[in-house]
Amino acid sequence: MELTNTSVLNALRHVDDPDIKKDLVTLNMIQDIEIEGNKLSFTVMLTTPACPLKEVIKNDCLKAIEEHIGSDVEVDILMSSHVTTTRDNTPLLPGVKNIIAVASGKGGVGKSTVTANLAVALARQGAKVGIIDADIFGPSMPTMFNCEHEQPGIRKEGEKNLIIPIEQYGIKLISIGFLTPAENAVVWRGPMASSALKQFIGDTEWGELDYLFIDLPPGTSDIHLTLVQTVPVTGVVLVTTPQKVALADAQKGLNMFMQQQINVPILGVVENMAYFTPEELPDNKYHIFGKDGGKKLAQKHDVPFLGEIPLVQGIREGGDIGYPAIMQEGPTSDAFMQVAEATAQRVAIRNAEKAETKKVELKV
Amino acid sequence: MELTNTSVLNALRHVDDPDIKKDLVTLNMIQDIEIEGNKLSFTVMLTTPACPLKEVIKNDCLKAIEEHIGSDVEVDILMSSHVTTTRDNTPLLPGVKNIIAVASGKGGVGKSTVTANLAVALARQGAKVGIIDADIFGPSMPTMFNCEHEQPGIRKEGEKNLIIPIEQYGIKLISIGFLTPAENAVVWRGPMASSALKQFIGDTEWGELDYLFIDLPPGTSDIHLTLVQTVPVTGVVLVTTPQKVALADAQKGLNMFMQQQINVPILGVVENMAYFTPEELPDNKYHIFGKDGGKKLAQKHDVPFLGEIPLVQGIREGGDIGYPAIMQEGPTSDAFMQVAEATAQRVAIRNAEKAETKKVELKV
Ligand SMILES: Nc1ncnc2c1ncn2[C@@H]1O[C@H](COP(=O)(O)OP(=O)(O)OP(=O)(O)O)[C@@H](O)[C@H]1O
Ligand SMILES: Nc1ncnc2c1ncn2[C@@H]1O[C@H](COP(=O)(O)OP(=O)(O)OP(=O)(O)O)[C@@H](O)[C@H]1O
Ligand SMILES: [Mg+2]
Ligand SMILES: [Mg+2]
Repeated sequence: MELTNTSVLNALRHVDDPDIKKDLVTLNMIQDIEIEGNKLSFTVMLTTPACPLKEVIKNDCLKAIEEHIGSDVEVDILMSSHVTTTRDNTPLLPGVKNIIAVASGKGGVGKSTVTANLAVALARQGAKVGIIDADIFGPSMPTMFNCEHEQPGIRKEGEKNLIIPIEQYGIKLISIGFLTPAENAVVWRGPMASSALKQFIGDTEWGELDYLFIDLPPGTSDIHLTLVQTVPVTGVVLVTTPQKVALADAQKGLNMFMQQQINVPILGVVENMAYFTPEELPDNKYHIFGKDGGKKLAQKHDVPFLGEIPLVQGIREGGDIGYPAIMQEGPTSDAFMQVAEATAQRVAIRNAEKAETKKVELKV
Repeated sequence: MELTNTSVLNALRHVDDPDIKKDLVTLNMIQDIEIEGNKLSFTVMLTTPACPLKEVIKNDCLKAIEEHIGSDVEVDILMSSHVTTTRDNTPLLPGVKNIIAVASGKGGVGKSTVTANLAVALARQGAKVGIIDADIFGPSMPTMFNCEHEQPGIRKEGEKNLIIPIEQYGIKLISIGFLTPAENAVVWRGPMASSALKQFIGDTEWGELDYLFIDLPPGTSDIHLTLVQTVPVTGVVLVTTPQKVALADAQKGLNMFMQQQINVPILGVVENMAYFTPEELPDNKYHIFGKDGGKKLAQKHDVPFLGEIPLVQGIREGGDIGYPAIMQEGPTSDAFMQVAEATAQRVAIRNAEKAETKKVELKV
């Protein structure tokens, strides 16, 4: 077969994106085809910078060219990415492609830890990432990103004062912790907390972002309601630990987002603190908090399981010193990277399959 | 010295309650003196059924009788207890002597676990104990007391419907978990949650209790404000784990209760999940969540340290199966018992030293 633009596209129509289950040409993922003699180069524009199937797709492309055009073509494929979105023409957060809520129901299961590590993981893969710390009463982001003493700038835009997020490790961050003294309790009733969240969404200069993570507090109350009523959320990452009392609350969290009036897609479940392995006994797994609870919850509700993270002192230390564990190479960062890849993948699939989430109109 | 009512009382005036630092006679703790020949018997009425100094006080009494009356007296001392209170003539919860809030700021540090175990510990020592599960969005008491499927009865009293608490292991319990299906999320804004708490306080048949524990949710918002505005709280048990991100929130919790307008006494700090020891390495302590953070927090704020509880799989399992760890003999239940004793002791000291907590008049 002759090597032309058309023959290349026809060949690549035989390659499917394994997640979205449509071919790369239909998905508009083949770009910049260049042909010179028997030399071919093109770009595969993936839907996530952290695509776990990058190599699979590349190999499938090579095979398709060989099979449908010929084995004498010299092929050079550039794997790049362009994060997809369903958020078009939205007045709030217009430059933000995906809003990912990290939730649980239960307290202390690692929502903030997972948020911090996923955000850094995706930023390191080249994505533009931000975090809203929506935990007004127990903000963790300033500590987890070692920027407790930072103060966000303010930029006047017409009548409006825009908050400029703090930047750390390539992530844009906003937290009530930057605006109030660390030791003081914020003793507010719900409406005050909700209006702080609204400011973080509407009056903050987020610019262009591929992923904006929302680190939610425990529970299913004012902050959660205000979030889904203010802005269409792309999807939810549900964090749980394996034990029954945590699963009971995680279940409530799931049900909140899945209920018909709210209907925010669940990207998947992360099982945190899955087991502890002492350095001296590398083959032992102590299931202090139980076993497989998160996996079973995902199965029960037929939502994806994004992976498990063991209980590791380094993860806690990373949180305390403000240097997320993902930034140190080793099995722990591998575990977080897998969850980050799975999350980005689920966002891409969700964007390919589902329409934009609707902002919730609830009378509460 | 002749053995008479008066000589006995005079002798016992030399014995101080080591906590309250006043003598037993002044404190009205000597009762039922009986004399027959050289036989003397009396009752020491302690201020807590779980008094860790029981033996010390008993020995001090024996020594005082010997020293001030003579060594030929045959003494029989009955150690009993009568929990003290500063709550007199209160319209709400009139039969409840002490209201103990278990709080943290941070989620998942073990507030509910500590509540359950302290309550059972004190009940086993003979105290009358109740628990209000004030975590409306993540109630844990039904699971932790293995009574998830119980439904409280209702008793009509005049116009009012009184909720009858569930009883388990000798503890009276109320929780939103008894009133709503377990899987459903309670998606309420603050005022609804607050009115549930008010019902648990005002419309529930608590009867006579020595200690009513309030298991608080994380944060410092509606439920916390409603509690201190509805009823004068005897004191707060602050639970924290040792790491920085938990201490930051625990600190906020402390500050909330200590702030001048609220001013609820802090009974002390409990450090939970202090370290993990694998069965195979009984001499190793893994400080997964850090070391001594709770102790240091107590020192910094000059409040009592009530003790530390290690990270033990059996504690988690006890929570999941609804059989609090304190009910199984061993080092774990010893640790909880110590914290329970220290807490009861602090309540007695607080009642001896301080006037009743004022209900908070705050405009929030
Ligand atoms: N896999 C892990 N291994 C070790 N420590 C962990 C792990 N995950 C979280 N932690 C630690 O556990 C504590 C609780 O985690 P984190 O603060 O992220 O939970 P959370 O769900 O955000 O809590 P909250 O409900 O209070 O917001 C933190 O100190 C964190 O560093
Ligand atoms: N010392 C301990 N050792 C092992 N597991 C523990 C210990 N203390 C608490 N746990 C477990 O940790 C989990 C969190 O504890 P718990 O639910 O009591 O915390 P909490 O502060 O009440 O959480 P929330 O903020 O969600 O109300 C539970 O599964 C509990 O069984
Ligand atoms: Mg958090
Ligand atoms: Mg709890």
